[in-house]
Amino acid sequence: MERTGRPTLAVVGATGAVGTVMLEILSQHADIWGEIRLVASPRSAGRKLAVRGEQVEVSALAEEVFDGVDIAMFDVPDEVAAVWAPIAVAKGAVVVDNSGAFRMDPDVPLVVPEVNAHAARRRPRGIVATPNCTTLSMIVALGALHAEFGLRELVVSSYQAVSGAGRAGVDALRRQLSLVAGTDLGTRPGDVRRAVGDDTGPFPEPVALNVVPWAGSLREDGWSSEEMKVRDESRKILGLPKLPVAVTCVRVPVLTTHSLTVHARFEDEVTVEGAREILATAPGVVLFDNPAAGEFPTPADVTGTDPTWVGRVRRALDDPTALELFVCGDNLRKGSALNTTQIAESLAAETR
Amino acid sequence: MERTGRPTLAVVGATGAVGTVMLEILSQHADIWGEIRLVASPRSAGRKLAVRGEQVEVSALAEEVFDGVDIAMFDVPDEVAAVWAPIAVAKGAVVVDNSGAFRMDPDVPLVVPEVNAHAARRRPRGIVATPNCTTLSMIVALGALHAEFGLRELVVSSYQAVSGAGRAGVDALRRQLSLVAGTDLGTRPGDVRRAVGDDTGPFPEPVALNVVPWAGSLREDGWSSEEMKVRDESRKILGLPKLPVAVTCVRVPVLTTHSLTVHARFEDEVTVEGAREILATAPGVVLFDNPAAGEFPTPADVTGTDPTWVGRVRRALDDPTALELFVCGDNLRKGSALNTTQIAESLAAETR
Repeated sequence: MERTGRPTLAVVGATGAVGTVMLEILSQHADIWGEIRLVASPRSAGRKLAVRGEQVEVSALAEEVFDGVDIAMFDVPDEVAAVWAPIAVAKGAVVVDNSGAFRMDPDVPLVVPEVNAHAARRRPRGIVATPNCTTLSMIVALGALHAEFGLRELVVSSYQAVSGAGRAGVDALRRQLSLVAGTDLGTRPGDVRRAVGDDTGPFPEPVALNVVPWAGSLREDGWSSEEMKVRDESRKILGLPKLPVAVTCVRVPVLTTHSLTVHARFEDEVTVEGAREILATAPGVVLFDNPAAGEFPTPADVTGTDPTWVGRVRRALDDPTALELFVCGDNLRKGSALNTTQIAESLAAETR
Repeated sequence: MERTGRPTLAVVGATGAVGTVMLEILSQHADIWGEIRLVASPRSAGRKLAVRGEQVEVSALAEEVFDGVDIAMFDVPDEVAAVWAPIAVAKGAVVVDNSGAFRMDPDVPLVVPEVNAHAARRRPRGIVATPNCTTLSMIVALGALHAEFGLRELVVSSYQAVSGAGRAGVDALRRQLSLVAGTDLGTRPGDVRRAVGDDTGPFPEPVALNVVPWAGSLREDGWSSEEMKVRDESRKILGLPKLPVAVTCVRVPVLTTHSLTVHARFEDEVTVEGAREILATAPGVVLFDNPAAGEFPTPADVTGTDPTWVGRVRRALDDPTALELFVCGDNLRKGSALNTTQIAESLAAETR
């Protein structure tokens, strides 16, 4: 394999839940990279991970790991990205960052290639941000409908998978399920709470046999940070800074794939046929919508796939300008690792 | 115990998931009844069930079981209620029916005592209907807000427990959970579907580690019967026959308690303080809303309790006339058995 002259990629956060999927995707996609350097916290340094069929040793995050790096994909906590992305840029890399540190910075484009690829070109800080996984799980479908119909309002409710909270979220649900499965717990008062105890992992409440209307941290007036992200990021990506967006984010006992119900109001009257035509041909979207044949997307079908799946397309019965949708997206693929990799790949094409 | 002269109650469908809770509630509430007669399908006849601390034998459904019955509570399939409720009425009983057979009949009141108790008085067919469990899980809270603010529009998404589909739903989730718990299944493509196989019980898709955007049967234009019920029944109970209501119903892997996100738009500007005051004092409602202290309702807290729990009360950031709510109600208690029993009790008080 001749890799000389190709761009060097760094994957920062290579050992995490999203990092693992990044390496999978890099191994599946056309190989456009020279060296792929894996970077993680000092704790993980020295481990070997497979990418492109080769074992690669993980380096500890430090200035020198960015020597010669053209593009760096970051999936690390906000505070780590805030410090280290500018360091990578100073060393000459373009950073594609999957944290929340830069998303709302006016000098950092927030990019979903199917919706606003052009935005990546203006990046005065050398950083391109990729949206929160919940926003990403719906925005490709909404972008396609907006381009045709002109979006005027969104009301969104989420059904978020525990892997949105990383490996700790997956471990928490698995642990809790093994405490309640095979028992008759769950229909009497206090059952689930007693079984799970205080071991709720990264969630404020038990998530097995439960749904938890909270994700992230508390913002003003009772909103959660996750809800504010969906509103702010959707507005920025769609270029609609005043779009009314009402969101409630809820965690559900699903391991992977975020689902959302969407009530979307448009400029003018819409038709289901028109919407279906757009969704059936939009890049990155799968229309899976035939309830008579039992066809609607569920996480069980969507996990491990790249596109945004859309089903249950209906026109609001009392408002001819509004559509109802049920949307699913794998939060670890398009919701984070895939979108980040897509952006990195388009930057690589641009620099050649 | 002196029961002479008190009304006779029949519980039709006494052995089902809802019937079981009816007997529990009858055993907990003040004992106002003379005889309580238990009725079920011939298959269950002869079984003995506990009510008010006594073992009572179950009779097979037949005309003569209604001899001398003053009030009959029905929890049976629609087609059974359609045939047998009029027979019970002809035998002199007032029927409180929890099926969908009569809810939209203009000569049958659809009653939630906290919202429209008065409606039960006009019952030309001798039947009073109790709403679908999904409608019931939110309507007490919405009724209180409507009385003060005047409702203008609803956008609702449900997170429905499997016991809404009866014992078969509970059994299906328990069976599926024991197949996936303790494994590493759930994050790879097709995992859940392969583990669960075709054994999806009363649901069209696996419900363990999944969410399924479907409940009920297919109606026109892609709507599910459950979604139509929430719209039609909410309009009838609130006395707002033209209220715009957009609903998406989704099944989640929770055993008991339906949750809903509600985007409710009112006549005029609303305040969170005003809404909280109403909800804090409304009969049948618990306001549980302090995210800073980790307080918001979840099924794990609500299961086994009577009220409608409301949390996450926020004013829409982009519309001062709209509120966002997260609402939970035990679908087997207020969602069906409790509401039915409350109506039966008020009818008993009326006939004395």
